Amino acid sequence: MTRQQLIEQIQAKKSCLCIGLDTDITLIPHFLLDYPDPVLEFNKRIIDATSDLCVAYKPNSAFYESRGIAGWQSLIDTWRHIPSDCLSIIDAKRGDIGNTSTMYAKAFFDEKSSGMSFDAITVAPYMGSDSVNPFLAFDEKWVILLAHTSNEGGGDFQLLKTDDRYLFEAVIDKANTWTGSDRLMYVMGATRPESFALIRKHAPDHFLLVPGIGAQGGNLQDVCRNGLNKDCGLLINASRSIIYASKGEDFAVRAREEAMKMQKEIALELERYNSLHAS
Amino acid sequence: MTRQQLIEQIQAKKSCLCIGLDTDITLIPHFLLDYPDPVLEFNKRIIDATSDLCVAYKPNSAFYESRGIAGWQSLIDTWRHIPSDCLSIIDAKRGDIGNTSTMYAKAFFDEKSSGMSFDAITVAPYMGSDSVNPFLAFDEKWVILLAHTSNEGGGDFQLLKTDDRYLFEAVIDKANTWTGSDRLMYVMGATRPESFALIRKHAPDHFLLVPGIGAQGGNLQDVCRNGLNKDCGLLINASRSIIYASKGEDFAVRAREEAMKMQKEIALELERYNSLHAS
Repeated sequence: MTRQQLIEQIQAKKSCLCIGLDTDITLIPHFLLDYPDPVLEFNKRIIDATSDLCVAYKPNSAFYESRGIAGWQSLIDTWRHIPSDCLSIIDAKRGDIGNTSTMYAKAFFDEKSSGMSFDAITVAPYMGSDSVNPFLAFDEKWVILLAHTSNEGGGDFQLLKTDDRYLFEAVIDKANTWTGSDRLMYVMGATRPESFALIRKHAPDHFLLVPGIGAQGGNLQDVCRNGLNKDCGLLINASRSIIYASKGEDFAVRAREEAMKMQKEIALELERYNSLHAS
Repeated sequence: MTRQQLIEQIQAKKSCLCIGLDTDITLIPHFLLDYPDPVLEFNKRIIDATSDLCVAYKPNSAFYESRGIAGWQSLIDTWRHIPSDCLSIIDAKRGDIGNTSTMYAKAFFDEKSSGMSFDAITVAPYMGSDSVNPFLAFDEKWVILLAHTSNEGGGDFQLLKTDDRYLFEAVIDKANTWTGSDRLMYVMGATRPESFALIRKHAPDHFLLVPGIGAQGGNLQDVCRNGLNKDCGLLINASRSIIYASKGEDFAVRAREEAMKMQKEIALELERYNSLHAS
């Protein structure tokens, strides 16, 4: 999915919601355990109940890998179920030396090789340019690079000062030399509202993938008011607060309600931004 | 495998060689393609031909993931074939927020959950303490944290100065507060001989996993003379130079010859260290 197509989806759906499929087999409704693949059944029903309200789905690779072969199969089949009008993001936080990153790219971008071809992958920056570039070698795929993450330890190194900048700013400045905002996004935790102005100095045009709303405590209005740009420029992720809204048979209905609540808040913020910036 | 058991293996085998199983199905001898699982067959023969010469095997997860379900099965079966007197390391470069790192730990440490239970995993530090600690919550397992990597981009961020230290030094200083040298190793590229003295200032006792010998151009003697400590303190990795020593039917014999060459060099360096430091 190109940047332009993503922007069109956001405008059509009045939403920049991304739903995180951090599907834990021990947390899904019990009745699903009777299905051949309970995780897949859960994901399908969540997707079917929410795909008009969001523009992206983000399976979290760890939750699938933890179940070995069975989990990997759930991941492949979940990818197949993500509708083509939604950006498919694999949250995998990969990154290694060049020939190894190429293999990771094949794992998630090359359907012939692995059975999956996501639109985008999250990548860790620590190993530098040649650990990221192999992902960009795949046409029309996105890299979503970790900048400033939502977790407590996200301050341990990302907030170290190098010269006059934080490390996460240095990461953005460097990565901006590798490719443009049509192939690269940054991860920016919703729990860091004070850093949004800073990130927008370094990456005014880029889309930011923003986790940390909901279970982690980030605030949607703060994120929008500090992060929106003329193309929206945000993908706001929620995982647990939507997918585990209920543990009963009504889980998909309740997930839809939670997603709609967020979509409506986002629509208001998009409208507010547009009216403030109307010429 | 405990630190003491690892040291005993090193002393018994006069070797600190780690063999990297970066097994690419397009690079293995053609006759193996007739086997039900060519990658597994290749790995088994490499392991059987070399396990008296090395103390660790390190499958590179990316090479298995790139082949989807089939690759994941090869990885599980390869793990089963690693003898118990060798440290089994999964080179996976994982790291994410706490609940997600716990899932990655289950993927590679919890046989009941995923079918595999490696002794050690490589972890990326960018997301900080709570991205690493979940791996340490598994008893008797090792974290091998990226410090200064062998690739060219390893300088992009790892060599940024924060106060009076490089970022990779700050990573080590911080990580040393999380656990001791009986559970934690550092990745230190062989292509960085000038940094070994520095890393030994911050981590005199830790084992260092050293990739970059062979195909990447690092020098074994330099690494030993700058990195050995009283317990050896090094795991020297070679992948391509050993496993692809021949593409013919003699590939395992040639792999053994290459491994033996390295083992002999290492044995000489261990002896040299001991005679220099004999009291």
